[in-house]
Amino acid sequence: MTAAFPFSAIVGQDDMKRAMILTAIEPGLGGVLVFGDRGTGKSTAVRALAALLPPIRMIDGSPINAERPEDTPDWSTAPLGEIVERPTPVVDLPLGVTEDRVTGALDIERALTLGEKAFQPGLLARANRGYLYIDEVNLLEDHIVDLLLDVAQSGENVVEREGLSIRHAARFVLVGSGNPEEGELRPQLLDRFGLSVEVRSPQNIEERIEVIRRRDAYERDTEAFMVTWQAEDALIRDRILAARSALRTVQSPDEVLRDCATLCIAIGADGLRGELTLLRAARALAAYEGDAAVTRAHLTQVAPLALSHRLRRDPLDEAGSATRIARAMAEVWG
Amino acid sequence: MTAAFPFSAIVGQDDMKRAMILTAIEPGLGGVLVFGDRGTGKSTAVRALAALLPPIRMIDGSPINAERPEDTPDWSTAPLGEIVERPTPVVDLPLGVTEDRVTGALDIERALTLGEKAFQPGLLARANRGYLYIDEVNLLEDHIVDLLLDVAQSGENVVEREGLSIRHAARFVLVGSGNPEEGELRPQLLDRFGLSVEVRSPQNIEERIEVIRRRDAYERDTEAFMVTWQAEDALIRDRILAARSALRTVQSPDEVLRDCATLCIAIGADGLRGELTLLRAARALAAYEGDAAVTRAHLTQVAPLALSHRLRRDPLDEAGSATRIARAMAEVWG
Amino acid sequence: MTAAFPFSAIVGQDDMKRAMILTAIEPGLGGVLVFGDRGTGKSTAVRALAALLPPIRMIDGSPINAERPEDTPDWSTAPLGEIVERPTPVVDLPLGVTEDRVTGALDIERALTLGEKAFQPGLLARANRGYLYIDEVNLLEDHIVDLLLDVAQSGENVVEREGLSIRHAARFVLVGSGNPEEGELRPQLLDRFGLSVEVRSPQNIEERIEVIRRRDAYERDTEAFMVTWQAEDALIRDRILAARSALRTVQSPDEVLRDCATLCIAIGADGLRGELTLLRAARALAAYEGDAAVTRAHLTQVAPLALSHRLRRDPLDEAGSATRIARAMAEVWG
Amino acid sequence: MTAAFPFSAIVGQDDMKRAMILTAIEPGLGGVLVFGDRGTGKSTAVRALAALLPPIRMIDGSPINAERPEDTPDWSTAPLGEIVERPTPVVDLPLGVTEDRVTGALDIERALTLGEKAFQPGLLARANRGYLYIDEVNLLEDHIVDLLLDVAQSGENVVEREGLSIRHAARFVLVGSGNPEEGELRPQLLDRFGLSVEVRSPQNIEERIEVIRRRDAYERDTEAFMVTWQAEDALIRDRILAARSALRTVQSPDEVLRDCATLCIAIGADGLRGELTLLRAARALAAYEGDAAVTRAHLTQVAPLALSHRLRRDPLDEAGSATRIARAMAEVWG
Amino acid sequence: MTAAFPFSAIVGQDDMKRAMILTAIEPGLGGVLVFGDRGTGKSTAVRALAALLPPIRMIDGSPINAERPEDTPDWSTAPLGEIVERPTPVVDLPLGVTEDRVTGALDIERALTLGEKAFQPGLLARANRGYLYIDEVNLLEDHIVDLLLDVAQSGENVVEREGLSIRHAARFVLVGSGNPEEGELRPQLLDRFGLSVEVRSPQNIEERIEVIRRRDAYERDTEAFMVTWQAEDALIRDRILAARSALRTVQSPDEVLRDCATLCIAIGADGLRGELTLLRAARALAAYEGDAAVTRAHLTQVAPLALSHRLRRDPLDEAGSATRIARAMAEVWG
Amino acid sequence: MTAAFPFSAIVGQDDMKRAMILTAIEPGLGGVLVFGDRGTGKSTAVRALAALLPPIRMIDGSPINAERPEDTPDWSTAPLGEIVERPTPVVDLPLGVTEDRVTGALDIERALTLGEKAFQPGLLARANRGYLYIDEVNLLEDHIVDLLLDVAQSGENVVEREGLSIRHAARFVLVGSGNPEEGELRPQLLDRFGLSVEVRSPQNIEERIEVIRRRDAYERDTEAFMVTWQAEDALIRDRILAARSALRTVQSPDEVLRDCATLCIAIGADGLRGELTLLRAARALAAYEGDAAVTRAHLTQVAPLALSHRLRRDPLDEAGSATRIARAMAEVWG
Repeated sequence: MTAAFPFSAIVGQDDMKRAMILTAIEPGLGGVLVFGDRGTGKSTAVRALAALLPPIRMIDGSPINAERPEDTPDWSTAPLGEIVERPTPVVDLPLGVTEDRVTGALDIERALTLGEKAFQPGLLARANRGYLYIDEVNLLEDHIVDLLLDVAQSGENVVEREGLSIRHAARFVLVGSGNPEEGELRPQLLDRFGLSVEVRSPQNIEERIEVIRRRDAYERDTEAFMVTWQAEDALIRDRILAARSALRTVQSPDEVLRDCATLCIAIGADGLRGELTLLRAARALAAYEGDAAVTRAHLTQVAPLALSHRLRRDPLDEAGSATRIARAMAEVWG
Repeated sequence: MTAAFPFSAIVGQDDMKRAMILTAIEPGLGGVLVFGDRGTGKSTAVRALAALLPPIRMIDGSPINAERPEDTPDWSTAPLGEIVERPTPVVDLPLGVTEDRVTGALDIERALTLGEKAFQPGLLARANRGYLYIDEVNLLEDHIVDLLLDVAQSGENVVEREGLSIRHAARFVLVGSGNPEEGELRPQLLDRFGLSVEVRSPQNIEERIEVIRRRDAYERDTEAFMVTWQAEDALIRDRILAARSALRTVQSPDEVLRDCATLCIAIGADGLRGELTLLRAARALAAYEGDAAVTRAHLTQVAPLALSHRLRRDPLDEAGSATRIARAMAEVWG
Repeated sequence: MTAAFPFSAIVGQDDMKRAMILTAIEPGLGGVLVFGDRGTGKSTAVRALAALLPPIRMIDGSPINAERPEDTPDWSTAPLGEIVERPTPVVDLPLGVTEDRVTGALDIERALTLGEKAFQPGLLARANRGYLYIDEVNLLEDHIVDLLLDVAQSGENVVEREGLSIRHAARFVLVGSGNPEEGELRPQLLDRFGLSVEVRSPQNIEERIEVIRRRDAYERDTEAFMVTWQAEDALIRDRILAARSALRTVQSPDEVLRDCATLCIAIGADGLRGELTLLRAARALAAYEGDAAVTRAHLTQVAPLALSHRLRRDPLDEAGSATRIARAMAEVWG
Repeated sequence: MTAAFPFSAIVGQDDMKRAMILTAIEPGLGGVLVFGDRGTGKSTAVRALAALLPPIRMIDGSPINAERPEDTPDWSTAPLGEIVERPTPVVDLPLGVTEDRVTGALDIERALTLGEKAFQPGLLARANRGYLYIDEVNLLEDHIVDLLLDVAQSGENVVEREGLSIRHAARFVLVGSGNPEEGELRPQLLDRFGLSVEVRSPQNIEERIEVIRRRDAYERDTEAFMVTWQAEDALIRDRILAARSALRTVQSPDEVLRDCATLCIAIGADGLRGELTLLRAARALAAYEGDAAVTRAHLTQVAPLALSHRLRRDPLDEAGSATRIARAMAEVWG
Repeated sequence: MTAAFPFSAIVGQDDMKRAMILTAIEPGLGGVLVFGDRGTGKSTAVRALAALLPPIRMIDGSPINAERPEDTPDWSTAPLGEIVERPTPVVDLPLGVTEDRVTGALDIERALTLGEKAFQPGLLARANRGYLYIDEVNLLEDHIVDLLLDVAQSGENVVEREGLSIRHAARFVLVGSGNPEEGELRPQLLDRFGLSVEVRSPQNIEERIEVIRRRDAYERDTEAFMVTWQAEDALIRDRILAARSALRTVQSPDEVLRDCATLCIAIGADGLRGELTLLRAARALAAYEGDAAVTRAHLTQVAPLALSHRLRRDPLDEAGSATRIARAMAEVWG
Repeated sequence: MTAAFPFSAIVGQDDMKRAMILTAIEPGLGGVLVFGDRGTGKSTAVRALAALLPPIRMIDGSPINAERPEDTPDWSTAPLGEIVERPTPVVDLPLGVTEDRVTGALDIERALTLGEKAFQPGLLARANRGYLYIDEVNLLEDHIVDLLLDVAQSGENVVEREGLSIRHAARFVLVGSGNPEEGELRPQLLDRFGLSVEVRSPQNIEERIEVIRRRDAYERDTEAFMVTWQAEDALIRDRILAARSALRTVQSPDEVLRDCATLCIAIGADGLRGELTLLRAARALAAYEGDAAVTRAHLTQVAPLALSHRLRRDPLDEAGSATRIARAMAEVWG
């Protein structure tokens, strides 16, 4: 396998990079949805982030990448080995994936040869403790997207089909890419992604040339290119690890809670998922920036990520979602 | 499994909580349908109620949670054990559930290995004596919803498929959540739910902050949070148990029957299911409040729960259903 | 199983009760279709009638409830026992019933284990000599309704599928309930039901209160309630039995035939099924009322049952079908 | 099995009866399509005709009712017995018939138990040398109707499916009933039926009473009724047998061929199937009436049967098809 | 099997007969598409031509009718016998044919009994070196028509399905009949047929009578009829055989190539298939007529056959396709 | 197998030939999409190019045509042999190909006989290191096209279905032909093809005659024709091989990168795939022409190939895509 493009060598695309870093600090944020045309480096970024993160410790052979023997599900038939280190798993949903491979299903081989009804785990098991990437969420059938969001939120994969009744841990960060030109997602699905970002091809000539130059350099001599960027990648990794440790001690003062509530009411976000995501994203950002408590400044930075896809469409307001959120912040917070 | 959020720690949402308590006292009410946007705590409430209820006594290994050996169905192949106590069962319909797992189906493993036609019970068996929760009834196919309502009403699961001819007890309270934005249920399905409530995100800032604060506290230190609320939960449990005992002795005077009939005629509810539900819900409420007989006051409290979803749509009347019911009560009862 | 609600305790609904009694006297009438909203007691009435009828005599173990050994079909593999008495069979079509369970199908277990192609009878076999009840005919697929009507009419179930070529007696009264709000039946299907009635929730307050009172009494103390009504039920049963015996001797004078023909031509009923049903229903009524011959008075009573669903729709005539039939009788018979 | 209603006891419906008699004399006419409302006795007539015809001689056990051993197909596995007499076969297409039962298919039992690929003949084999009746052609899927017409025309059933490559004789008269209110047949299918007739309920009171009287008599005492009509049935049978013998000797003078051609051109019938059918039907009629040669008088009688369904629709001409044919005959033949 | 109607006894229909003769001389022409109403003798003509052609020499038992052992495909499991003579194969696509029977498929019997993955050849194998006739191309699914045209053009059947990866020779002339009233073929499919002809019922009385007379004679005494026409059939056969031998030596002067090109450009035929077909058809005609080189006269005769279905539709030009082609020839060739 | 038509004998069609040569030099360009009517020689050209290329070295029996033992996938069960030379593989997607044969699937034979779950490779494995040709991309289902493009781009086939979890190298050049009259490809699919060309039938008489003459010569005496053209084919092959060696040393000066960026912004191509393809195609062309560095002249030649299918549709601009690209080059580069 070729080495992934270095995360730090991605030109521009700061929102996307920030959102991905936040999910690495606080996996409970609920995934990221990345909007934008093909060719803007969405899948490159996910692979880059995963390559940058430190390895996980797990029992060799665990079907769900579990670290503790007691976390191994009872349906597992594989013998368990030593504790080993493995790269953070990144699971792709390949085109044409069938639902049985997503959720796991009856193990046909065992059924036919041994006559027993064993569970063969699917991609959700393999993604546990890592990332699950869906290229073009729009092209997946709604019921599979729904299922993925359900599992991503509950952290548990429940299978009730073909005579099986199985559940296992499936805690992962869901990253979806969507192309608004190929049909929008239902609002109900949108709301269930934690963060969203929009990426565009750079329109600045110099930036565009830089993208081609780096891409061409990477492809013509990958090894040399990796060496060039490894120090910058290490820097980001260290900050993420420090933020993970600090996260539980970051304070969330009452005025920050109030800011979350007033902002969400102002922009008309349904339900309370907006506020909770806003709070948690701001807390992860505070940890990343080494701050002891969440402040309005953190909220201001993450509000577009946490709320853009929760705005009600307003046909009379032609402003983009980022502008509308900025305006709302100015109004309610003064 | 993480402990469920405490029932008494739910902020506001009094109608929903009242409706759920009534089904715990009188399971024959016909289930609850909860309307509202995602993120308003519907599934939290069901899990909370189930966790609050006392355990049931059942034979260890009974596929339908039966307490008496004579209630064990003849198709059961599991050996039966001692009487044990188990939490009130709460069964979720996971997305992508197949009809065979709902109703039970031919046990393929036994068919293939032993060549015999055994029944493998489904979620309806597992829900016996407990709760069955459907998130987003709208997303289930109509024929499955119909089937669930049929079984919920008859208390019996009848399976005629794949050469099987099976019936078993399936007495449970059906709780469905629906999002009116994703398409309405057919009126015929609506009518078959006993009670309905509508929940909304609180628009009051302080209430909203309180929700975030409690939720955040629960997630950051669950154990401490549970301790804080256990006394309040116990209080509700005791009242429910007392109400269950008292229920058979609560009187229903003739003028109450008359009130039920005049109100239902006034609002134009088809059939007699409205009246019967109204009477039973009021009787359960009377029992919960320790009253010896049903009065018009009880009817007044439960009428919106029992009748809102049975109103005919009136395009000329822009008032909400609760208002229309209140108006009707004022008119016919003076 | 709980005892069925007593037939005689049903409040009002005289047309429905009369139609059901007629099918008990003359099963060849071609079934009953009951229109009306949910909650008007349609399924209660069928179960009540079946519980009221005397048991049938049959060979223990006969798959088609046959009384004589020579009526046992040659595909039956069950050993036959003594003559026993069993309640008149009432078979429900549960939701989600598959065609193989309706008609019977290849017995998969025998095919897999013994390698032989045996027939496993379905609900049509089980309904022989009894009642087959379909709740909400509208929700069944047309081809199954068609199949049921075909079998109901011919009294024989012919199966040509999966390599099977089977026929067996299937004589039953088909009772269907339909909700006109959920889409009408095709006229071709309508015509094949013998009788039809329309039921509505009572609009009279006292009647409505009586319904709730009886229903509530039945549910709170079923046994006591059954005792209260058993004498009235016995009275009806005796009259039905007497009518069955008398049926063959009731005369049908030529002027009655003429009345049938003129009335059917006047209302424009296609085909001759209307006349034959009208004649037979009147004859059954005469038998029930102890009369020696059919008279115009009998025709008048049963005409709405036999002809309402055979009227051509007339968009210029806003009168209900009963009114139109009454008017036609007045016109043609003077 | 109850005895079929006597053919000669059918009141009126002369066209239908004539068409059926012609197919009994000349099975190569291409079947009959009977239009009309339900309840007009279409299926009664087919069964009546079949019961009236003399039995066929066949080898006991032949799957295609063959008389000569050399006609037995090589795929037949049944042992062949003596020559026996059997009633003319009448095969019904039951509702829900599957294509494998129509054409025959792989014998699953033999495949599973003996591991061999044997052919299990279907209804087309059973109908050989007899009648195949389809009630409501409109309700069958087009591809099955097409298949039936193809086989009816070629006299051979060709099966290429599931690894089988089978052909066997399937010579039968196809009788279909159609209800124009349930959607018309495609013109291409219409044209492939040899004859067509339209039946209506009699509008004459006396005739209608006579129908009810006979039907009622038949049902109340079938045996006595059969005795009453057996002589008339025998008369028709004898004339049919005589006509079959005479058929080959009936002459078709050139002027009759010319009459056929001029009439078909005048009414604009596509293709030459109209002419050939007209000629053959007239020849069968001549044989039935004991005439030595076909004359214009015979053509006049059978033209409506042979050509009605081959008329092009003419929106400006409101006359019925019989009238239009009569007018065309008057014009071209003078 | 009854003898086929003699080719030379077909009345009129010269275009259709000429097109079929050309395919017998030059099978590489790409098949014939015959337009016209049912009943105009299309399928009769194909069968007649096949019966007229000389037998082919082939190895007894070869699944693809091969003459040389080295042409037998390696998947063939049948033992090969002597060289024998067989009639030119004519394969019909029966209605309801499944794709597996067209292309061949996994041999289920061998798979089940011997556990091996053998290929069971389909109709394409059986049609090798002969004719494949599709009645009503319109009624076949597009993907099967596409597949047939692909194989007809490449002369090879490639099967990639069910784990099989098979190829075998499948050189046949495809003859399709189409009824323009039942929906047109896609232009892309049209273009892939080599020749096309349109047949109509004769409108001339004498011709029509002659058709009926011959048809009736054939059916009443087939043997005598065959004797009458055998000499004329032999004449045609001899000319075809002579033309086949001469074909390689017929010259195609440059001015003929130029004529082909100018004509095709003039009528706007896309691609070059029109020109190549025109050239080859003209060459086959020259061989049939015993000429040493192709001339403009040959082109003139075959142009309507080769180009009619390649004309672009011109809504402003109401002339038929033959007229338009004649006009174009007059214009470009002077 | 007949020898393929010589690449150099193709008349005209320079764009198509150039695009194909470029993919032979730089397989990473992302395939070619050829637009045009049937009959313009698209599939001929692919086969011709493949026949012209030098053979590849591979291990005999390798399912993915691998040269090094370590590249053989671990699921391969075939024994591996010596290093052999084989023609560059060209794999056709036959009509009716099923997804399991494209991606590979469970080997049913091994599953049934040995009871083991082995992978049977599909066409993607067979196409490794060669060409994959899809005739009429429009007729393939979108999800298969998507899958092919995905694999073509990643060079890896990932299979997650039927309990298999397989990946193997699948590096091939995808060549698709499309007929714009049969429905356009989705823009998202278009963008993923590297190059595109449009071919038309020549409108020049002499050219057209030359096409017919060569085609006819090839078909009448293939061997002689091949000899005539082999020297010209060898010339092209040598240049391709030289270009492959030179490719890594061709320079891409910064001003060329800038030219790529300015042109792509000017024509409004989304994403950066346009620029990268433009750069790589120009580099391959430079290598083919023996130049040491990419210049604007190379860009000018390949821009229409790399960008035509990436233009946004502009309803106000009636110019063809080549014209629009030329105009943009003139504007931005002066």
